[in-house]
Amino acid sequence: MSRHIRLGLIQMSCSRDRDTSFATASRLLEQAAEQGVQIAIMPELFASDYFCQTEDTALFDIAEPIPGPTTELLAACAARHKLVIVGSVFERRTAGIYHNTSMVFDEQGGMSELYRKMHIPDDPLFLEKYYFTPGDTGFKAHQTSHARLGTLICWDQWYPEAARLTALQGAEILCYPTAIGWHPAEKAEYGEAQAGMWETIQRSHAIANGCFVAAVNRIGHEGAADGGIEFWGSSFVADPYGRVLAKGSVDREEVVIAEVDLGLIERTRQNWPFFRDRRIDAYQGLLNRFGR
Amino acid sequence: MSRHIRLGLIQMSCSRDRDTSFATASRLLEQAAEQGVQIAIMPELFASDYFCQTEDTALFDIAEPIPGPTTELLAACAARHKLVIVGSVFERRTAGIYHNTSMVFDEQGGMSELYRKMHIPDDPLFLEKYYFTPGDTGFKAHQTSHARLGTLICWDQWYPEAARLTALQGAEILCYPTAIGWHPAEKAEYGEAQAGMWETIQRSHAIANGCFVAAVNRIGHEGAADGGIEFWGSSFVADPYGRVLAKGSVDREEVVIAEVDLGLIERTRQNWPFFRDRRIDAYQGLLNRFGR
Repeated sequence: MSRHIRLGLIQMSCSRDRDTSFATASRLLEQAAEQGVQIAIMPELFASDYFCQTEDTALFDIAEPIPGPTTELLAACAARHKLVIVGSVFERRTAGIYHNTSMVFDEQGGMSELYRKMHIPDDPLFLEKYYFTPGDTGFKAHQTSHARLGTLICWDQWYPEAARLTALQGAEILCYPTAIGWHPAEKAEYGEAQAGMWETIQRSHAIANGCFVAAVNRIGHEGAADGGIEFWGSSFVADPYGRVLAKGSVDREEVVIAEVDLGLIERTRQNWPFFRDRRIDAYQGLLNRFGR
Repeated sequence: MSRHIRLGLIQMSCSRDRDTSFATASRLLEQAAEQGVQIAIMPELFASDYFCQTEDTALFDIAEPIPGPTTELLAACAARHKLVIVGSVFERRTAGIYHNTSMVFDEQGGMSELYRKMHIPDDPLFLEKYYFTPGDTGFKAHQTSHARLGTLICWDQWYPEAARLTALQGAEILCYPTAIGWHPAEKAEYGEAQAGMWETIQRSHAIANGCFVAAVNRIGHEGAADGGIEFWGSSFVADPYGRVLAKGSVDREEVVIAEVDLGLIERTRQNWPFFRDRRIDAYQGLLNRFGR
């Protein structure tokens, strides 16, 4: 049975000035709705610049409660445009506990349970372990009127475990709000390989789990003029064969639109019955750090 | 620290006549040694045609004990040419228990512990659940003089869990003896997508685990003239970035050679520290069939 839906990936530049970021997000969501998008997915932490390039207590003030300004914006856009929206918020849960959080809004503006980023990176200029307490929500899929959506966030995209656990919650589309880019000094030597591995690992989650993947990245250069991060855009949607159905530019603000047939999930899983043959009796070692 | 080694993937056609298959294997192993290969990897069940296209009790007679003719051949070739060889055998373990088994031979002809294929497929013309008892060995890596080798087999290649568990055993190269091909009637419509997903999922294991992957497939058409399987060759080696370093043709017998630097493993894992951030406290659900 075919079930066609239209996805829109909100690839945008993001600003430390929240009003500017909100204006961009609102404009692109409106544009998405005008183009018939039913499910829109935001990039990670779109309400601000990617502040994790330095460690500074003052930057915790960017965090918001939930509900708060960002969730109110997204709820309003969802209701106004009759969109399902996957959102992303730097969440202040309480004093001293801040999360990198995702959630889904329905066409009435209602909000799902929260997903709090489980895998937290820490690399030069991606100092997330300083800001984000590791999530304690586990992995989640949220039923919407169009599809069952898995909420994962950026660094999670490197973990087959995260994709699998979310797919086992029934997710039909694994949604990855993302903020990833090049260190300009490395781009010439490693840029192509890095972007290639980023796309490949996510396409593989679609294959391994017989589902769709949608990865949404920001664009633009942020940070020091002689360094910083050049976010590489390239937001894309992959089908259960890992084929890229739509892909954004590396540097333009745009709604990347993909028409997907969710009916392909069951047909693919019947032909490639990977779920049937998982050796759940032999996976205990996945709970180990290393070794048996 | 660089550690350069030379891999040779023995891409060959295989025959129901064991002497013919053995002659091909011997010839290609000799050729590999002449080209400086240090580790040679055989395709799956290379001693015979891919007999799993039908269910027939008579075909269990193809199985061999271990040690047996195939392991003796490989041990002799390993010692003669001073090669490490990853082998593959249809193993008769006892009356009524047959396995699809892999092992590693050292340059003296010594044999490692066995790995018995853990994930068993069953699809039209790939009727392996009839022939192969699921492995009870768990996932394994074998220390050799050149590298620590993970032994996995064909259908295992679709399972991120299998790759991860083998990498967690310290494997530096995930070796996948394989027998995969097109149903000729499907090739025009699905052929490219199928071969693409096969390569992509395995490249993703290299990325997720910061290691090398070597997949070795047979070539040739086997089975009914108006059906059967057209094995697609395309044996390849991928590096920890998922880049394909060497790739075979779709239809020619050849030793696919790749020079790999095992030093890249640690350098890559330092830059992409995925192992550091695994949420082993939150992976319990991987032991479930579905749901929480």
